[in-house]
Amino acid sequence: MSNPTAAMLVIGDEILSGRTRDANMYHLAGVLTSHGIDLKEVRVVSDDAPAIVSAVRALSSGFDHVFTSGGIGPTHDDITADCIAEAFGASIDVRDDARDLLAAHYKRQGSELNEARLRMARIPAPATLIDNPVSIAPGFTIENVHVMAGVPSVFCAMVASVMPTLTGGAPLLSKSLRIQRGEGDIAGPLGKLADDYPDLSIGSYPFQKDGIYGSNIVMRGHDSAQIDAAIERLAKEMDV
Amino acid sequence: MSNPTAAMLVIGDEILSGRTRDANMYHLAGVLTSHGIDLKEVRVVSDDAPAIVSAVRALSSGFDHVFTSGGIGPTHDDITADCIAEAFGASIDVRDDARDLLAAHYKRQGSELNEARLRMARIPAPATLIDNPVSIAPGFTIENVHVMAGVPSVFCAMVASVMPTLTGGAPLLSKSLRIQRGEGDIAGPLGKLADDYPDLSIGSYPFQKDGIYGSNIVMRGHDSAQIDAAIERLAKEMDV
Repeated sequence: MSNPTAAMLVIGDEILSGRTRDANMYHLAGVLTSHGIDLKEVRVVSDDAPAIVSAVRALSSGFDHVFTSGGIGPTHDDITADCIAEAFGASIDVRDDARDLLAAHYKRQGSELNEARLRMARIPAPATLIDNPVSIAPGFTIENVHVMAGVPSVFCAMVASVMPTLTGGAPLLSKSLRIQRGEGDIAGPLGKLADDYPDLSIGSYPFQKDGIYGSNIVMRGHDSAQIDAAIERLAKEMDV
Repeated sequence: MSNPTAAMLVIGDEILSGRTRDANMYHLAGVLTSHGIDLKEVRVVSDDAPAIVSAVRALSSGFDHVFTSGGIGPTHDDITADCIAEAFGASIDVRDDARDLLAAHYKRQGSELNEARLRMARIPAPATLIDNPVSIAPGFTIENVHVMAGVPSVFCAMVASVMPTLTGGAPLLSKSLRIQRGEGDIAGPLGKLADDYPDLSIGSYPFQKDGIYGSNIVMRGHDSAQIDAAIERLAKEMDV
């Protein structure tokens, strides 16, 4: 049985303009891998409604789970929730459960729950809320799409809230072998190894630093004995 | 006149498994912004031929330029060149110009130009080569797609080779204002400002660290006087 699949949609001009280096993709990729959910595709789009709507539809129908990051804050450029509702033809408005969370939070803080902050309680009618222990304003899940904040500390907290609700597969195991020889010298034996171990995904990631070069060979799969055997054979063939 | 648009396609299991944190997207985003080319979308896909072929076709027909990263080395998992050829219905084989570059390079190094390394001379027939001063094996441009290596130092060198061949637009200028108030307090005035300056793209990027919180407001546009005026108005309204 193969693992469930996932895609991620990162929403935000700040990534595409080079202002911000994305951190959420790297975090989510690691979490999904350890839960046995295979991340198959990531898309990054700008704060543009048609682009968001069409990406949500494409990814939601193509993969078991979709995780979005960004665009659910209180400012005018936060349009993700409305785009998600549009993608699924769902109605959206300020919802009592989300408003109650925000009202209690801002009361504790002594801040006003103004019109802008109330935007963060706009949740599509059929969605369930995702807990946000960091800054309270919730994410939400609708169908197979989990909608989360872009601020990394909040994104990570929301991922932690969502993961226990998902059924994972066999965690992907991996081992790597560092070989200080040119990738072109490794490629022949490696290709034969890949043919003999069709269940393993075998990657070669060359490095070159301070005059030392070579490649890290990574074997990924679900059977640790198979990974060990393949690593051992390659080490022997490459004289490592 | 609006700027040319671009998309990027990152190819590689190592990003999706969380093993490697992508660096090339961040680099390319910054370079394109300073050249007046608007990066509109990024996709990350695995080393899977159908996924690569369909992403190349979608992005090539949707944007003025496409930049790919990864999968052009000598090992079995390097399938990008063949996928690009397939996407465009072009023939592909070892090409004399690319083989000559590699032969001279490996002769200087005292290494053998073996079958694996020759894979790196597989270039689609209608493509032009992209210079690689770091490790010689070239990238290539076919139609509006620029195919480059995934190793960051090589990717950066290839981007530097390609950029002078592209016509950019007006560079996107930006200025930011740091406001130590909750995003919910800034959102109202900011929304009105965005309405009054429709030519500017205005983003709000909240921060929270060591008990200090607020938001960096970034204004992007092509007219520096307009950006200055908008920043000044916001600073006054927010009492910064």
